[in-house]
Amino acid sequence: MINKVGREIPDELLNELGKTGFQGSHFRDNLSYKKAAPKIRSLNDNSRSKLCKSLREALEKCELRDGMYFGFHHHFRDGDYIINMVMEEVEKMGIKDITICASSMGAAHDPIAPLVEKGVVAGIQSSGVRGKIGEAISYGRFKKPAIIRSHGGRVRAIEEGDIHLDIAFIGAPTADEYGNARAVGGKSDCGVLSYSKVDSMYADKVVVITDCLVPFPNVPASISMVDVDYVCCVDSIGDPKKIVSNVIRVTKDVRELMMADYCARIISKSEYFKDGFSFQTGGGGAALAVTGFLQPIMEKQNIQMGFAIGGIMKVMCDLMDAGLVRKIVDAQVFDSAAIEHIKTNPNHVEISTSEYANPMNKGAFVNKLDFVILGALEVDTNFNVNVVTGSDGIVRGAPGGHPDTAAGSKCSIIVAPLIRGRIPTICDSVLTVTTPGEAIDIVVTDHGIAINPLRKDLLDTYKNSRLPLKSIEELRDEAYHIAGKPDPIRFMDKIVAVVESRDGTILDVIRKVEQL
Amino acid sequence: MINKVGREIPDELLNELGKTGFQGSHFRDNLSYKKAAPKIRSLNDNSRSKLCKSLREALEKCELRDGMYFGFHHHFRDGDYIINMVMEEVEKMGIKDITICASSMGAAHDPIAPLVEKGVVAGIQSSGVRGKIGEAISYGRFKKPAIIRSHGGRVRAIEEGDIHLDIAFIGAPTADEYGNARAVGGKSDCGVLSYSKVDSMYADKVVVITDCLVPFPNVPASISMVDVDYVCCVDSIGDPKKIVSNVIRVTKDVRELMMADYCARIISKSEYFKDGFSFQTGGGGAALAVTGFLQPIMEKQNIQMGFAIGGIMKVMCDLMDAGLVRKIVDAQVFDSAAIEHIKTNPNHVEISTSEYANPMNKGAFVNKLDFVILGALEVDTNFNVNVVTGSDGIVRGAPGGHPDTAAGSKCSIIVAPLIRGRIPTICDSVLTVTTPGEAIDIVVTDHGIAINPLRKDLLDTYKNSRLPLKSIEELRDEAYHIAGKPDPIRFMDKIVAVVESRDGTILDVIRKVEQL
Repeated sequence: MINKVGREIPDELLNELGKTGFQGSHFRDNLSYKKAAPKIRSLNDNSRSKLCKSLREALEKCELRDGMYFGFHHHFRDGDYIINMVMEEVEKMGIKDITICASSMGAAHDPIAPLVEKGVVAGIQSSGVRGKIGEAISYGRFKKPAIIRSHGGRVRAIEEGDIHLDIAFIGAPTADEYGNARAVGGKSDCGVLSYSKVDSMYADKVVVITDCLVPFPNVPASISMVDVDYVCCVDSIGDPKKIVSNVIRVTKDVRELMMADYCARIISKSEYFKDGFSFQTGGGGAALAVTGFLQPIMEKQNIQMGFAIGGIMKVMCDLMDAGLVRKIVDAQVFDSAAIEHIKTNPNHVEISTSEYANPMNKGAFVNKLDFVILGALEVDTNFNVNVVTGSDGIVRGAPGGHPDTAAGSKCSIIVAPLIRGRIPTICDSVLTVTTPGEAIDIVVTDHGIAINPLRKDLLDTYKNSRLPLKSIEELRDEAYHIAGKPDPIRFMDKIVAVVESRDGTILDVIRKVEQL
Repeated sequence: MINKVGREIPDELLNELGKTGFQGSHFRDNLSYKKAAPKIRSLNDNSRSKLCKSLREALEKCELRDGMYFGFHHHFRDGDYIINMVMEEVEKMGIKDITICASSMGAAHDPIAPLVEKGVVAGIQSSGVRGKIGEAISYGRFKKPAIIRSHGGRVRAIEEGDIHLDIAFIGAPTADEYGNARAVGGKSDCGVLSYSKVDSMYADKVVVITDCLVPFPNVPASISMVDVDYVCCVDSIGDPKKIVSNVIRVTKDVRELMMADYCARIISKSEYFKDGFSFQTGGGGAALAVTGFLQPIMEKQNIQMGFAIGGIMKVMCDLMDAGLVRKIVDAQVFDSAAIEHIKTNPNHVEISTSEYANPMNKGAFVNKLDFVILGALEVDTNFNVNVVTGSDGIVRGAPGGHPDTAAGSKCSIIVAPLIRGRIPTICDSVLTVTTPGEAIDIVVTDHGIAINPLRKDLLDTYKNSRLPLKSIEELRDEAYHIAGKPDPIRFMDKIVAVVESRDGTILDVIRKVEQL
């Protein structure tokens, strides 16, 4: 079928997946379904312990077998040791065909690539796929196509039963011997454990791996003992230097600052900009700078933010400390200042990823979002965005919360330079649709701003503003004029990855790239 | 069958319920089962609202029909308006045969009794059944036998799917328009919403009823919006004067103080009494006084409590403030001081009732409990306890957390006067077994202390103590000598209530009492 973003999704793939193509952001709104549930084992004999002497013992107790699905989180980001540690042990045990379902994966997981050739890993389901894993996907080395989901989409897939996790492995900065796990404290402090909440509730077996065992009870717990089977304590679960960044980069790039200024002006002229408004930015230079530009406007107009959400950084914590933010709802922290902040400020609150963005629960935070500032590798004239495949066709990005916040928010703003590394950002047709154009409202570039014509209200709002408004086609033409229209990438027939929309329909497919 | 506490449970009842008789506290330990799951409806269109103008509108949107099962919580205790308010509206709508599954019910719910005769209410499943509801049960006025469960047992029944809640009604001291509900703030502050957590997660429809609508987002939320369908704001959800007690009764009763002193001496001589020990008391005079007696012993021996649990009162908060308690894990508050305390002290933490006591999850707090001090209406020579049926055979009590903490703790201590209102407390055979004797370790009376012979280790520990140890038979003989052995109550054949063990097996049945 040709789906609503104009991509052809082969019927045999749809049949195999039991899915349909993307049919609009609210296609599956108000739909009734029975939630999935794990098969668990009770513990009420107080003489039994959950502590395992080694990861090996925990794996044996989980009755490991070929073909299992494993859940992992990415709160340790590039400092994560958990996935490699578990998969190394699995390889030693001679187990094959594991599917890794991680909230995201990154450069830290390059050691997994060789396990694909060895048959230990059969498939990847993740938001982020970068480094050697991304190459292994794009070069067609996995037995099964990768499934790429947004953060909200992953929770949905687990809660609806599309993914059934046999075992979830949860790296925990602190845990007690009954499995109450917290993100804060210990050697590998990561601020929140939001991505793991769904794993703990829906996996049959849950193993907490910590490098800091603390006295019972480790409360308030992000992951509750009532969902944990086994606890094992290892030397180290992550590299603190790579878990979060210690230094905030405040951009001095004139182009980024100009785009940030455009965004702040767009927001401040919006009907949604009033006391109690809500806001998310990504971690890019321009996006991050928007918060700084907003502060004086908020102060002048005596407007407080009702809530800030998303990956949280120092700049947002500072805004709260300045009295301009009522609540920070946090599903991921990006720097050490944010970690310290969540420990001490009761209005800075950890939420689960289902609360953040699951489109199929009874209402997530993204539904309540006014503004979101997002990045893009490519945006096409239908406002479709690609944040996953690079200009060489290889997967090296992550939708993350991009499609979730774009769909949920009242005003989603893409910030991207018109040209990036001699490649036009605005184009006729993105390589891969990872966020549908109907969810994108405004595109801000260093050469002008385009408003999605679907949003007639926004066209009206900004028509007399002094913002450099252009049509998306004008921006594309400028980009092509400057950088030239790139030659198309040659893909092979084989489908190596499926881009699932947040609601479980299929947005696009990614095909094999020939290895040079 | 004759179950493990010697009660005959009719086979036809067991077949009808799909249950077996009680077979020991750990009979269902390490058992594998698939958890229940609700049928829910998604909300991802940000233009849709959850706010209802009235309770009627919410009920209509829930597609009310005859025979539904409703969930309610009892955090508002004798001040609760919610159950009556909902059932009054249900009656007006002409709906019949509702089964009320409440965490507990009390005198506030006398207005429900007439709805039984009218056919609006068909059954009750609850921990507490008192007042006119208790009489209606004992006089056989319900269509279906009542099911009496412990707090942990109710969560188990919902999580295992024995109860499927069609709609849960959650009275919330504060809520936002998307259903994030908190126990604190507002006019009807109740400290925690622990009992409602399971309802919110397992009911198909969830209605939050508040009398204090607050700005979004009302976080950290006890009940999350992701589980809430509708929100309605009413004038008043409870009578603050009856929700909690404002005044702590410190007993001056010499008999109670003597028993409290015995308990403190038992605890302080135990091998479990060491730094990090854990403790729960009920709210009775003697039980409450134990905490006071323990304080100087803890101070002298430089021992901190690792965690205190259960219904929390000022005396325990004071002990924390004195530096003697590391964590308070709170599933219910009993006084206003405890409510204020949980708002300000980060080591005083709300937990769910599943975390508190569900025997069929992966491990609850009660499994980690060292000492619990509990009351009893009757204790028999097999140490079986009755806390539900009065000396006239009428149900007027609640197992609450009694069977959960007794089974989970290392040392469970019953405190009760030998004679109460001319009725012997220690007897040959309790009217109704609500906690099995194998879970009771020590019985403290004002006439001596009996240790359960199953606990040879405890007999050994206390053999040279100066405590007035007696056999349970000696205590019974003294009680009968003083008060005489009461005439047996005449029950009729009809079973009016089933006492379910916390693990879902059947502990006992309660038969109809002839109305005089």
